[in-house]
Amino acid sequence: MLTVVKIGGAVLENDDELSSFLSVFSSIAGKKVLVHGGGRTSSELMEKLGIQPVMLDGRRVTDAVTLQIVTLAYSGLNKQLVAKLQARKCKAIGLTGADENLLKAVKRPPNPIDFGWVGDISKSFVNTNVLMGYLNHEIVPVLAPLTHDGKGNLLNTNADTIASVVAQALGELEPVRLIYAFEKAGLLWDSEDESTLIPEFHKNDLGKAQYDGHIHAGMIPKLNNAFHALENGVSEVLICKTNQVNKLEVKTILKI
Amino acid sequence: MLTVVKIGGAVLENDDELSSFLSVFSSIAGKKVLVHGGGRTSSELMEKLGIQPVMLDGRRVTDAVTLQIVTLAYSGLNKQLVAKLQARKCKAIGLTGADENLLKAVKRPPNPIDFGWVGDISKSFVNTNVLMGYLNHEIVPVLAPLTHDGKGNLLNTNADTIASVVAQALGELEPVRLIYAFEKAGLLWDSEDESTLIPEFHKNDLGKAQYDGHIHAGMIPKLNNAFHALENGVSEVLICKTNQVNKLEVKTILKI
Repeated sequence: MLTVVKIGGAVLENDDELSSFLSVFSSIAGKKVLVHGGGRTSSELMEKLGIQPVMLDGRRVTDAVTLQIVTLAYSGLNKQLVAKLQARKCKAIGLTGADENLLKAVKRPPNPIDFGWVGDISKSFVNTNVLMGYLNHEIVPVLAPLTHDGKGNLLNTNADTIASVVAQALGELEPVRLIYAFEKAGLLWDSEDESTLIPEFHKNDLGKAQYDGHIHAGMIPKLNNAFHALENGVSEVLICKTNQVNKLEVKTILKI
Repeated sequence: MLTVVKIGGAVLENDDELSSFLSVFSSIAGKKVLVHGGGRTSSELMEKLGIQPVMLDGRRVTDAVTLQIVTLAYSGLNKQLVAKLQARKCKAIGLTGADENLLKAVKRPPNPIDFGWVGDISKSFVNTNVLMGYLNHEIVPVLAPLTHDGKGNLLNTNADTIASVVAQALGELEPVRLIYAFEKAGLLWDSEDESTLIPEFHKNDLGKAQYDGHIHAGMIPKLNNAFHALENGVSEVLICKTNQVNKLEVKTILKI
């Protein structure tokens, strides 16, 4: 089974958790890909630089300055992760969508809302030849949430979505397990209480759970990416804590 | 002839010059490697963040915060260069020394001066298998001035030195031309007057030229790297303007 792991947010900001995750990730057998976010690091850098985020309709816009900042933050994080994986004898290479034209995206149309330098992707955009070239040589691609437009511009692209489409594209070649790893044990009925872990969550349950307020609004895009992966050839999609990605004893399995 | 081009400083800060350089670089026939600096971008980022450079004995020290900043700046620049090369149909991949263990360096010993997170390298440290793997597939490695220690840390490493040792290592496999490209036409007798270009400069002339004040102190490490390359199997070492790297009509040829 080929494994695609997405990490984001909190774990990248906590040295101990990151260190423990990277050791656990390195111990996963077989072909594997790591996709990381970095929104918090970018936000902190913007704050330190005194740059106000541009918001439209409650969502962040990637203007030229923001693109510059996220490029530095994501690319820098990416290379730090690679250096730390090498120390764990995990041969890694840090890539964006621009490298070897791995993920050429479409800049999101400016209507109805102009989100700026944001790239939209689907599984047909993934250069699986490049990824399999590395995976067949036991090299672990570490993907930053940046794609490109082929016209010289990097584009800000959601890491959950990158993980999903990469898993879908690789799923055409081999069975793929996609893991969304974060700071919680999985999908929780009560987000403050890990004993309320939902071991199996069906797409049909999403509407009601969301309506009843059990699923945090921030989880919805992640879940949609997850279900989309299952509907497009990914064998298994899980949500679990970062230190569980090799054992998978405690987790939420998603079903369609 | 395999070409290794080093660019730095000014060209990375000037959109027009960079654009023109990248088009010219893309038109170089045959295998090629691009090595870039980024000191100015890092310094600007540090300044905007209100971080004072740490200096010891007149030289900059890479403390932990500085390493963090240069990692972001160099890695970000690196990926921007890759995206711009892709737009010129030049298949590129952005790498640090950590990626695929391309350049494992030795952290500089703390005595007599502790320069912090700085990596020293020599040609035996270059993973030529990885580089030739890309070059044989017509992929252009774009190298950021970061190496790693194999223990999880990136290290700040001089880009002129990286260009020199990479050229030396590849020179064991194929004839290599090393080009130090910058904002001037070459080595100038009078640094303000391009008509005083020195077409050929011999290592033996260095002492007197330096003593007479014709060679700027900042050029000395670059020249030492250049001569070191010639002494270690690099076929040809040139200094020229960034927009000359494909034609090489105006240049300084270095000789030993």
